[in-house]
Amino acid sequence: MSDKTDKSTRVKARLPRGLADRGPADIAATERMLAAIRDTFELYGFEAVETPFIEYTEALGKFLPDQDRPNEGVFSFQDDDDQWLSLRYDLTAPLARSVAERFDSLSKPYRSYRCGWVFRNEKPGPGRFRQFMQFDADTVGAPTVAADAEAAMLMADTLEKVGVPRGQYVVKVNNRKVLDGVLEAIGLAGDENAGRRLTVLRAIDKLDKVGPQGVRDLLGPGRMDPSGDFTKGAGLPEDAIARVLAFTEAKRETACATIAALGDVVGGSARGTEGVSELGQIAELVAAAGYADGRVVIDPSVVRGLEYYTGPVYEGELTFEVKDEDGRPVRFGSVAGGGRYDGLVARFRGEPVPATGFSIGVSRLLAALKALGQVNEQSGRGPVVVLVMDPDQTAHYQRLVAGLRQEGIRAELYLGAGKMNAQMKYADKRGSVCVVIQGSNEREKGTVQIKDLVLGAKLASAPDRETYLAMQAEAQIEVPEAELVAGVRRVLARHA
Amino acid sequence: MSDKTDKSTRVKARLPRGLADRGPADIAATERMLAAIRDTFELYGFEAVETPFIEYTEALGKFLPDQDRPNEGVFSFQDDDDQWLSLRYDLTAPLARSVAERFDSLSKPYRSYRCGWVFRNEKPGPGRFRQFMQFDADTVGAPTVAADAEAAMLMADTLEKVGVPRGQYVVKVNNRKVLDGVLEAIGLAGDENAGRRLTVLRAIDKLDKVGPQGVRDLLGPGRMDPSGDFTKGAGLPEDAIARVLAFTEAKRETACATIAALGDVVGGSARGTEGVSELGQIAELVAAAGYADGRVVIDPSVVRGLEYYTGPVYEGELTFEVKDEDGRPVRFGSVAGGGRYDGLVARFRGEPVPATGFSIGVSRLLAALKALGQVNEQSGRGPVVVLVMDPDQTAHYQRLVAGLRQEGIRAELYLGAGKMNAQMKYADKRGSVCVVIQGSNEREKGTVQIKDLVLGAKLASAPDRETYLAMQAEAQIEVPEAELVAGVRRVLARHA
Repeated sequence: MSDKTDKSTRVKARLPRGLADRGPADIAATERMLAAIRDTFELYGFEAVETPFIEYTEALGKFLPDQDRPNEGVFSFQDDDDQWLSLRYDLTAPLARSVAERFDSLSKPYRSYRCGWVFRNEKPGPGRFRQFMQFDADTVGAPTVAADAEAAMLMADTLEKVGVPRGQYVVKVNNRKVLDGVLEAIGLAGDENAGRRLTVLRAIDKLDKVGPQGVRDLLGPGRMDPSGDFTKGAGLPEDAIARVLAFTEAKRETACATIAALGDVVGGSARGTEGVSELGQIAELVAAAGYADGRVVIDPSVVRGLEYYTGPVYEGELTFEVKDEDGRPVRFGSVAGGGRYDGLVARFRGEPVPATGFSIGVSRLLAALKALGQVNEQSGRGPVVVLVMDPDQTAHYQRLVAGLRQEGIRAELYLGAGKMNAQMKYADKRGSVCVVIQGSNEREKGTVQIKDLVLGAKLASAPDRETYLAMQAEAQIEVPEAELVAGVRRVLARHA
Repeated sequence: MSDKTDKSTRVKARLPRGLADRGPADIAATERMLAAIRDTFELYGFEAVETPFIEYTEALGKFLPDQDRPNEGVFSFQDDDDQWLSLRYDLTAPLARSVAERFDSLSKPYRSYRCGWVFRNEKPGPGRFRQFMQFDADTVGAPTVAADAEAAMLMADTLEKVGVPRGQYVVKVNNRKVLDGVLEAIGLAGDENAGRRLTVLRAIDKLDKVGPQGVRDLLGPGRMDPSGDFTKGAGLPEDAIARVLAFTEAKRETACATIAALGDVVGGSARGTEGVSELGQIAELVAAAGYADGRVVIDPSVVRGLEYYTGPVYEGELTFEVKDEDGRPVRFGSVAGGGRYDGLVARFRGEPVPATGFSIGVSRLLAALKALGQVNEQSGRGPVVVLVMDPDQTAHYQRLVAGLRQEGIRAELYLGAGKMNAQMKYADKRGSVCVVIQGSNEREKGTVQIKDLVLGAKLASAPDRETYLAMQAEAQIEVPEAELVAGVRRVLARHA
């Protein structure tokens, strides 16, 4: 109750970096997209589940890419019993915790989907936020690659359902086991090489961003980026680098040819051969279901940046071009990705639990749909506004509004302190189709004026005086108060 | 890639206290309720806006009830530039920040709604979570109590729209200015008494929980609760306590009589008299719009626990009884509340900005609707499951599934490792209406079996052998593979 508004104590109205408010057009467009994703996931037999935003830090684990220091990348804080809690950084680690907790009561394979905000404690940048939305689908308890093949096809169907035309996207499938085979072949097997394997993985994952020469540097001594930052490399010898690059470039015209080429790259590695064989099965399943027409392809350039994948990985990429900040055409790139993570539930269970699934980057996909012109970015029409011509009559105006709402017409009483002009401006700015006016004249006659703002705005463009007068007569009609609803309906119908 | 699953390093699958996962039935029921709330808010001309989960601690302020220590009640952590961040604890403080930030570009009065999770770092208890959902509507820039009256009526309409029958709820309206007048009359005016005024406010807010004697104790020396915890009181003398209690008990049969009684309680206080006059205007507006039939009432027992309210306060209460843990009938109580907070945006702007709005406690309201039997708690039917009779034929089964999905039929391939029996059990547990079976016999004939699980479950109750055989014939049909979709449609239609 004390006056805290003097200048010295005034608080600055601002958000922390990398966070943003969202307005009605963005919220509505997102909701429409989420509904399309949900429909597709349900068509595939997935059911909804949600986990909370906060988890034990330990339960989430540290699986973020590009984070070498502990807790980097994650928002963490201590509970009152000193245990560390974190905001979830993705929806996969919490799902693994949730599945492990309810393991015995779940009917398996357990197909579930979830949509929600995740948080990254990272340096924000253009289009890079510290809070963003993911939409995931996962199958837990399905050991064969049929589940991975299905996930890749679901990704394709979902992209089409939200409005990406066929031919404008591709779902690329690879297998971490093949990469493991390559790494084994160049002498990086064993626990003692885990760190270097991760460095190789992250180098390949940057292919899109830094190009083949950049990856070559990252596999070798290291790479200096344009800003002068140096990233230490994996320190591989030249022949090993050539072999890794041969793996990423093994894509051929057909799935069969690609798989044959991969067979060569993994040499005799048992794990690599197993991976190639799995890719063969996926290719067969995809072809049988009719998705081998360029929608789902085997492409070894995709490895995914997260450490926890153990088998097939898949990524949904938009292939159409948009202009970057400098006006150069660039591909939109990845909007969805995932893979098999047989070890994630095992962290809790102490026994391997097969699982595979993917995330859609909701905000990124929405930005892509906007670039494609598939998003209606206009706000809808505003509500009918009943003007307050005489403040003493507010109760009566309120009754008129209540009458409109009872008939399902979106309506509001003007609640500000402005005069007639300000009220008309307000209705205009809200995008209202019409306003309702009752001054003392109308009140005495028991009538109301309904002013059509859309038609009114067109008056100036009337070709001649006759048309003008006819339009004007239509743009402001007077009806008995008892016929307010019918009158408003008539005006709304003109512009529906 | 290393094996992290040995017992010594196994992580426990658990959630921090006061947090919970949500399943499909709960999510679906919540979504239906949220849609009903959204429709009602939009009918009133409110538009959607969303703010992020993380804000500067300073921007949120410290307005939680029952929290005397700094940062108590809020999850906070430091950003990399050492500034304090917090998870939002309600949706009002972030809205004030957002409005202040965009103030000049907003058309005012600015009507907005938002739905989202909020976080309280409190001791959780039964039905009391550390993450819960609120759904808010607010009007900023509306100086008159017409906005408060409208908010109270919107609250009533919303409760009916989600399924609370008329007569089972009441929206109670009071005014903080009247309380201020009472406090002034007992000598608690001025900045130096701000702390004691807050103690009085919180004492009254506990009326529902601790009863009139409890409030009396909290206004006086203090109160020992049944667990032995002592809460220090406001230390008011007996006559002051009597006056405060007279205020809370001033409700009479009619709004007019209540308002007259309040006029007596505030004595000559100018602020109190202003508050009573505002309640009179609200009563008139509510009556004019037809809500004075017991839906919206003036009731001085409601004060709301948050410090930031500056004028009218309102609360939606469910009046029907449910049984408590000990089987005793109790009223369900408050599910929505709000009021006028003219000082909250002013914290940022340095000038008063009129604002009023309320929150619906989404989880609490859903629990109430369940108690009323207004929530369908059954999970829907599961998808059609195509069984894998012969793993070598997986690609072909996958094609059958794809065919069903193309026709909009929710379907899935069994992706587990189980045999026929396990697969049937799985479909049963999912609530599938039917499964599709193609063994080698059917494959050779080019047919599929469609097994109706719902009808199959009723076989045992067939009254005689003839009926049994007729039912059995219906419960498992064989159709040419090309007619799979039509066959499945026929079975689904039986149980639609």
